[in-house]
Amino acid sequence: MAPMTRYRRARERTYEVLEKAAEGDRLSQAVDITIIAVILANGAAVVLESFDGLYDRYAGWFFALELVSVALFTAELALRLWTCDLRRPGGSWPGAVVRFLVSPIGIIDLLAILPFYLPLLIPVDLRVVRVLRLVRFLRLLKLTRYTRSVATMAAVVRERRHELMVAVFLTSILLVVASTLMYYLESKVQPEAFPNIVASLWWAVATLTTIGYGDVFPVTGMGRLLSGIIAVLGIGLVALPTAIISSGFVEALARKPEAAEAEPPAAVAARFCPHCGKPLDAVGGTGNAIKESV
Amino acid sequence: MAPMTRYRRARERTYEVLEKAAEGDRLSQAVDITIIAVILANGAAVVLESFDGLYDRYAGWFFALELVSVALFTAELALRLWTCDLRRPGGSWPGAVVRFLVSPIGIIDLLAILPFYLPLLIPVDLRVVRVLRLVRFLRLLKLTRYTRSVATMAAVVRERRHELMVAVFLTSILLVVASTLMYYLESKVQPEAFPNIVASLWWAVATLTTIGYGDVFPVTGMGRLLSGIIAVLGIGLVALPTAIISSGFVEALARKPEAAEAEPPAAVAARFCPHCGKPLDAVGGTGNAIKESV
Amino acid sequence: MAPMTRYRRARERTYEVLEKAAEGDRLSQAVDITIIAVILANGAAVVLESFDGLYDRYAGWFFALELVSVALFTAELALRLWTCDLRRPGGSWPGAVVRFLVSPIGIIDLLAILPFYLPLLIPVDLRVVRVLRLVRFLRLLKLTRYTRSVATMAAVVRERRHELMVAVFLTSILLVVASTLMYYLESKVQPEAFPNIVASLWWAVATLTTIGYGDVFPVTGMGRLLSGIIAVLGIGLVALPTAIISSGFVEALARKPEAAEAEPPAAVAARFCPHCGKPLDAVGGTGNAIKESV
Amino acid sequence: MAPMTRYRRARERTYEVLEKAAEGDRLSQAVDITIIAVILANGAAVVLESFDGLYDRYAGWFFALELVSVALFTAELALRLWTCDLRRPGGSWPGAVVRFLVSPIGIIDLLAILPFYLPLLIPVDLRVVRVLRLVRFLRLLKLTRYTRSVATMAAVVRERRHELMVAVFLTSILLVVASTLMYYLESKVQPEAFPNIVASLWWAVATLTTIGYGDVFPVTGMGRLLSGIIAVLGIGLVALPTAIISSGFVEALARKPEAAEAEPPAAVAARFCPHCGKPLDAVGGTGNAIKESV
Repeated sequence: MAPMTRYRRARERTYEVLEKAAEGDRLSQAVDITIIAVILANGAAVVLESFDGLYDRYAGWFFALELVSVALFTAELALRLWTCDLRRPGGSWPGAVVRFLVSPIGIIDLLAILPFYLPLLIPVDLRVVRVLRLVRFLRLLKLTRYTRSVATMAAVVRERRHELMVAVFLTSILLVVASTLMYYLESKVQPEAFPNIVASLWWAVATLTTIGYGDVFPVTGMGRLLSGIIAVLGIGLVALPTAIISSGFVEALARKPEAAEAEPPAAVAARFCPHCGKPLDAVGGTGNAIKESV
Repeated sequence: MAPMTRYRRARERTYEVLEKAAEGDRLSQAVDITIIAVILANGAAVVLESFDGLYDRYAGWFFALELVSVALFTAELALRLWTCDLRRPGGSWPGAVVRFLVSPIGIIDLLAILPFYLPLLIPVDLRVVRVLRLVRFLRLLKLTRYTRSVATMAAVVRERRHELMVAVFLTSILLVVASTLMYYLESKVQPEAFPNIVASLWWAVATLTTIGYGDVFPVTGMGRLLSGIIAVLGIGLVALPTAIISSGFVEALARKPEAAEAEPPAAVAARFCPHCGKPLDAVGGTGNAIKESV
Repeated sequence: MAPMTRYRRARERTYEVLEKAAEGDRLSQAVDITIIAVILANGAAVVLESFDGLYDRYAGWFFALELVSVALFTAELALRLWTCDLRRPGGSWPGAVVRFLVSPIGIIDLLAILPFYLPLLIPVDLRVVRVLRLVRFLRLLKLTRYTRSVATMAAVVRERRHELMVAVFLTSILLVVASTLMYYLESKVQPEAFPNIVASLWWAVATLTTIGYGDVFPVTGMGRLLSGIIAVLGIGLVALPTAIISSGFVEALARKPEAAEAEPPAAVAARFCPHCGKPLDAVGGTGNAIKESV
Repeated sequence: MAPMTRYRRARERTYEVLEKAAEGDRLSQAVDITIIAVILANGAAVVLESFDGLYDRYAGWFFALELVSVALFTAELALRLWTCDLRRPGGSWPGAVVRFLVSPIGIIDLLAILPFYLPLLIPVDLRVVRVLRLVRFLRLLKLTRYTRSVATMAAVVRERRHELMVAVFLTSILLVVASTLMYYLESKVQPEAFPNIVASLWWAVATLTTIGYGDVFPVTGMGRLLSGIIAVLGIGLVALPTAIISSGFVEALARKPEAAEAEPPAAVAARFCPHCGKPLDAVGGTGNAIKESV
């Protein structure tokens, strides 16, 4: 039984170390810092490689970093898979592995190493390799594991996804309609700027997002009128997602326990039952409350 | 009486099928998907037609799509009119038809097919036909029928319409005043950029919406000062509608019944005491309530 | 005493007519529409005058409109002064006049006609007259009298004025610091674009407000780095006033009686008196509560 | 003992005078105004010095202002250090000094004078002096001491710092990824605009912040597609911090005691029971409830 327990202890310790370090857990902190450092080094490498000459001169170093990173990330992923059933106790190990691999964080971990192994498994031509190199950037996303707030924000966005999708949908329609109208208004005067509707989409995006590069803009009176209307609608367009996400944050805030002292006094009120005086927080929700009290 | 009931059943079924499909209602889902597909195909067609040559080469196909779409949308509209009194039971059929035809969704359905029939009824010259072709874009708006959230957002906007109209009103005044001042400040130096106040409105819009194409901008010191002030006011201008819609969403959120589970835990808990099961709203008191009730 | 009452009635009726028309008060509506029409005509006139030739050809008409407008606005102002003590009953007439003349709406009414009378009273040279003509634009502001929501929004802005002033203050500091740094970074390379700090303020405003006309932008690495930082801070700059005004609207909303059903249940908590257990909703407000409980 | 008390009185009075002036405290107000005036004069000086010739002609005056400012700020800092233990009574003087010097406001006070003394203490070459002159701008930050709301806003930002950092983090990743992709898409076509990834960061910032100077923009179809996507994401990017800070303000608002009168009527109504007239707030969680009900 002793080896068994030692085995279990090893797994639990491994899990601890891989998770965001707890206060004072030196080893876990060291591991976190190492991984973060390597991730940042990868980001820097991709950027530096883009400078002429730099790549050719230091190709060896870049390749070395690549090998180290892939080795580290592969080991990390392996250990995570080994211990992933410790996240939610009481589940089978295979099920936990699947749940992990289909979760966003799991997909990111996979994509961080696959581009390296793929060419070794199946023959791919150079252009594909080129694109695969870019995927290394997704390694930066591994950083999200080390910040909590990402979860909150993701939750807010997920909760409001319907409204956000509608906003995106309305935007797309507005973009297509705007560029169609602009095409019919300006293509005669500036055929090079508005050769077809797809091209004038470029103008529509630059206008609706209020970027206004200035490479394409209407010159006719009607075109400018339309452009003005689109621009003003663009403000509303910025207002919508902001408003949607704002209200989401306000709600999420009200739900958080820390927000307790931020609640209106009356709301904080019912902490204890005024009839029997027992604490209510202990129970929390009404659902089980009823069952329990029955 | 049998035929009567069969007739009634037919109408009810038709209504079901036309409405957004319920879970598992295969026929209704098929109809929805067909209509959505045709709508999207129409959007694509308008875009593709704008490419030189593409239209001439595939004129036949474009016309075929047009015929199919109009046939489908006409049938759809006819059936909707036939069954529209089932939406709100207990109303006369003619009344329901009128209500439907003046409703936004009804107007869109009409505009989606009218442009095709109009030239057949009354003689119109080619330029008008040109414009009418654009109206086909409104067919995209038929998609709004298939998303729920549009309603929520429309409601928020409608609720805040007064504030939004004021924002628009203030914006217009600001635009006119700004372009008037700019006209007097810059027309001497750049007569081609600011020939008259209407023309300098183009600058005012590009500045106030923070687009800044860069085709027109002040060059004199005073002009730049004014431009800077307008730009800063422009930020406030973006802030207003955002704030208005935001607050609208926050309120709509709080009012929604679904928002119930979004309440702060403590608030939900305070429905019944889980220990003695007595209602808590009655007291809404805190711990000291206990001492008292004892 | 009859004439006395007739006099009082006349004043009250005049006040009614001048105020925003009540339902079905034909005369009052007619007056409102006339004034609004003349105001809009004035706006149009100023715009049209800016077109070359247009002014010379229709100088007579423009002058006629000017005379009519001034006559109408003078009469309006006179009657308002005559009846302004009816707004807040129980005050002396002179006091009411002063209060009206120093109120924003009163100042606007004065500025709408003063530019016409000033040259008649004191000799002014043409340039001043030129500027005075612009002041006619303020007549558009007379329209604000006919919309309610302006009050709400003004209230929100007034309530948050401290925060807004701080935002403006921080913006100004940021602008000055940014343009100073940019001046030292770029003035060597682009002396014409950044001749001195005041000139580079133009760049700072265009960047911080995310307008980016594109007439002035950094070309050195350091300059672009600074520009990027300023741009990102610019986003925060847009966020601040939006957030400030948003929260103001949310609060104003919560204060409104209609918002009553928008309260979180827990907040409504005190539905029953914890002392005698009688329902409180029945009474609602405190005021009548006293009456009742007496 | 008399001198002792006189000494203590002197310190207390000095502290009062240096703090933001209380109503009617003439001396304190005079001191505040003097300091603010000198601070603003410094800002003006830095700006004016940037004009060619202006500096050479009035070098004397600028130097005089510098001397006066440094003397004043040095005296101010000295007195603040002398009295800083009066801020939080019951602490040792050295501890208070340290707390003050490491506080933001203390650091600003130090940086406001150090640049002047540094060259006198250690030999520095002219370029460093150049930079040091810029630091004088931080003197403007001394103004923050005289506005209250800065504290509130700083608090909101501090409270939401995690979310804001995440927003910044996501932005940086988005910037790097976008400019990497754009580099691979456009560097072939526009080698001068996208020579390497660091350079195309300039485009990414200008696009994501919707500035769009127009000096760098994609010309290929793929590049424009990417640019459009980045631009739309840019809107979300503006939405995030706005939403975060908004919700922070809404919460801060709800926590503020002044927000009390901002409660929805129904909640305010329940101050006293209309039947038995007993206070309800007492139960809604204040200590006196106990006293009373006992």
